Amino acid sequence: MAIESVDAYLDSHKDAFEDQLKAFLRIPSISAQPAHNADTLRAAEFVRDDLIAMGCAAELIATKGHPLVYAERNDAPGRPTLLIYGHYDVQPPEPMEPWLSPPFEPTVRDGNIYARGATDDKGQMLTHLKALEAWLKTAGTLPVNVKVLIEGEEEVGGASLEAYVAEHPDRLACDYAVISDSSQFAPGMPAITYGLKGLAYFEIVLRGAKIDLHSGTFGGAVANPCNALSVILASLKGPDGRIQIPGFYDAVRPLEDWERAAFAKLPFSEAEFQASVGAPSLEGEAGYTTLERKWARPTCDVNGIYGGYQGPGPKTVLPCTAGAKLSFRLVPDQDPKTIAELFRKHVEVVCPRGVVIEKFIDHHGAPAVLVNVETPGVRAAVKAIEAGFGKAPFFIREGGSIPVVGLLKQQLGVDTLLLGWGQNDDNLHGPNEKFSLADFHRGIKTSAHFLAELAKA
Amino acid sequence: MAIESVDAYLDSHKDAFEDQLKAFLRIPSISAQPAHNADTLRAAEFVRDDLIAMGCAAELIATKGHPLVYAERNDAPGRPTLLIYGHYDVQPPEPMEPWLSPPFEPTVRDGNIYARGATDDKGQMLTHLKALEAWLKTAGTLPVNVKVLIEGEEEVGGASLEAYVAEHPDRLACDYAVISDSSQFAPGMPAITYGLKGLAYFEIVLRGAKIDLHSGTFGGAVANPCNALSVILASLKGPDGRIQIPGFYDAVRPLEDWERAAFAKLPFSEAEFQASVGAPSLEGEAGYTTLERKWARPTCDVNGIYGGYQGPGPKTVLPCTAGAKLSFRLVPDQDPKTIAELFRKHVEVVCPRGVVIEKFIDHHGAPAVLVNVETPGVRAAVKAIEAGFGKAPFFIREGGSIPVVGLLKQQLGVDTLLLGWGQNDDNLHGPNEKFSLADFHRGIKTSAHFLAELAKA
Repeated sequence: MAIESVDAYLDSHKDAFEDQLKAFLRIPSISAQPAHNADTLRAAEFVRDDLIAMGCAAELIATKGHPLVYAERNDAPGRPTLLIYGHYDVQPPEPMEPWLSPPFEPTVRDGNIYARGATDDKGQMLTHLKALEAWLKTAGTLPVNVKVLIEGEEEVGGASLEAYVAEHPDRLACDYAVISDSSQFAPGMPAITYGLKGLAYFEIVLRGAKIDLHSGTFGGAVANPCNALSVILASLKGPDGRIQIPGFYDAVRPLEDWERAAFAKLPFSEAEFQASVGAPSLEGEAGYTTLERKWARPTCDVNGIYGGYQGPGPKTVLPCTAGAKLSFRLVPDQDPKTIAELFRKHVEVVCPRGVVIEKFIDHHGAPAVLVNVETPGVRAAVKAIEAGFGKAPFFIREGGSIPVVGLLKQQLGVDTLLLGWGQNDDNLHGPNEKFSLADFHRGIKTSAHFLAELAKA
Repeated sequence: MAIESVDAYLDSHKDAFEDQLKAFLRIPSISAQPAHNADTLRAAEFVRDDLIAMGCAAELIATKGHPLVYAERNDAPGRPTLLIYGHYDVQPPEPMEPWLSPPFEPTVRDGNIYARGATDDKGQMLTHLKALEAWLKTAGTLPVNVKVLIEGEEEVGGASLEAYVAEHPDRLACDYAVISDSSQFAPGMPAITYGLKGLAYFEIVLRGAKIDLHSGTFGGAVANPCNALSVILASLKGPDGRIQIPGFYDAVRPLEDWERAAFAKLPFSEAEFQASVGAPSLEGEAGYTTLERKWARPTCDVNGIYGGYQGPGPKTVLPCTAGAKLSFRLVPDQDPKTIAELFRKHVEVVCPRGVVIEKFIDHHGAPAVLVNVETPGVRAAVKAIEAGFGKAPFFIREGGSIPVVGLLKQQLGVDTLLLGWGQNDDNLHGPNEKFSLADFHRGIKTSAHFLAELAKA
């Protein structure tokens, strides 16, 4: 049987795979830092060369930024086509001081490999390449058609990928996409993430006087944009945690009964969660559990505020401007553009007299995504996870956004299977990023079996 | 007559006085910048040497910081003793770019002398020294007893002066103090400032989680200190501009009828004031005019806010802390300590759940000051201004605080006569600071006549 040869190949190549992972992690492919452009290119070439070495005609696709890596094999006419997405770029490692081992010298401690990009996304992405390799090196062919699309700008906005996908829907046509760039529910508890929140991110800047004034000489006679900003921001949520923008909840799809029941059954401790974040209490929308708030209810957070004097000690200034960055996490079926309109109108209504809205910036928006869990692809993923992890996955949602999922849905019309091998404490984007080597190998095995299961679907 | 000789001396020494002012202004006595410590000392020596040259036994008094200059002449036993206060230090000149002529190269344009310190306070302070000189060089004696106390730390908090005054109340004993470090009501409209607001300045820092979190993964389940801060700040004032802290107005002394009538008669244009500050409208406490709000009603201004991400573009962070600097301007008879207690209690009551008040800093406080306008000293000042400026002064109040006025009242029990020769557009603390040379000479003449009038009081 082909799958048994694949499994044997995986067993006998664990050391080789880990060595390859380390080599990949040593490349400081920091897409945000132009000084590392050559390194970022080197990471793209690493992926391309690995695909070529296993027998895929891979290529670099030049963009305005960092190149895309692309390969495809159409070995199975009549069977499904799978698009594997991942990214070879990483976040900047700064701040350096908290790292226990250098971010680009991968180091194994307690079964985890520590390095920038270990979980996000080099380690997770590599699982799919190694699964392809196992098939090609044993069966000499893949059981389904596969397209591989790996980008180098995920950490800086993904503009090149977005343009390429929009321009090449035919080339990228597929039945499912798979992404491993997220986490399990908890250690030993693999998961399929079937829902992501959307996002609507804004910045507002208020202006009062034309210049900063002395707060003694002018205070009380001229409106203060810092005070006015607080009135606007305070108006956004009520004491019950509900967002008070008229119409905000109109399009919200309520949680389904099966979801609330499924969430409630998950082994989730509110007390442990509170301890892990170190908050004095857990607060949110009345009538919902923490998991429901995190995964399935829209939210409003001020991401930053600024205005006036921020240095040490006092300064008696009456500032002329104040600003805030704030964002709404959206759920199905909220439309980011509608939310932007409702928010803007609300700000105009509640803005105190004496200040003007000098800037209203709509930074970016993306709708929420819910993947249909009743598809052959999802059923194949469940079986593959059972094979790779030895247990059935949990179905979970996630409060964050993965814009490429919406992009693939919109441009290619496909559902993405979010099969994350990471853990919630992997510290992606932070110091001491890690990835479990056991999960690395489980992920490879799951990916290899997923190809086989998808072929039968 | 002695005063006629004095006037003649003033007339014949205008050029000499201006030359001296320029020499004084050329010294970059920036008390905040240790690199200029030698210059700051040089300015103290300039004042001392000028006093010695006119016949006063002046000395430098060493302090932990910049020295005090002190001199006294007890020429008139039985007559009042006047304490002349001023400061020889100046604000940093930065930013340099907007200066049309270098800040320490005094330059005359359109009858104004442009330089750092021109109005604040070298030019204004020098008027009193030149008045003393005129008396000593003509009559050979002063008509009242005079103590001169000039400090070099006014722009950096005045700690040395505060300590010295507290330790030497007998040496500094006097009947009145006079300070020229403020402004006229408008050009050609000299004024006596009889009221200053007090100040209560605070900083609060809120904390939610122990570290910054991802706003997607954790938003809606963990309280956001930026949102919570806005709730606290928005609670401070109502839409009617009234401060909503329980008990805040309890001790406020209402404006007297004569004051409201006097303010209303002042040639003040709300439209011109609005245009000068460039605000979209004038807003403040309902039921009061702009002058009443500026001068005689307590206010609440947020002086600075900070929290979360303030860089360019969006960042989806759920910040773990947020802070604000804010201050109340107080009127008679509000007590800064009582206000601090009321404010702290209010913050604790309105602070949303899920965050804690990590810091509550009481930066500093000072009570408001109202000078009794029915004293011989004030009447003498009125006559002197009529002599020096050719018209009677307006009686005005001011929204700012001059801490030394409270210090002299508290430690020496004396009222201070605030006789300001500056203009509201003199740009003290800003680029292109200026002082009218005509007002310089009017100030000298007023000061000289004030000594004569005080002798008769």
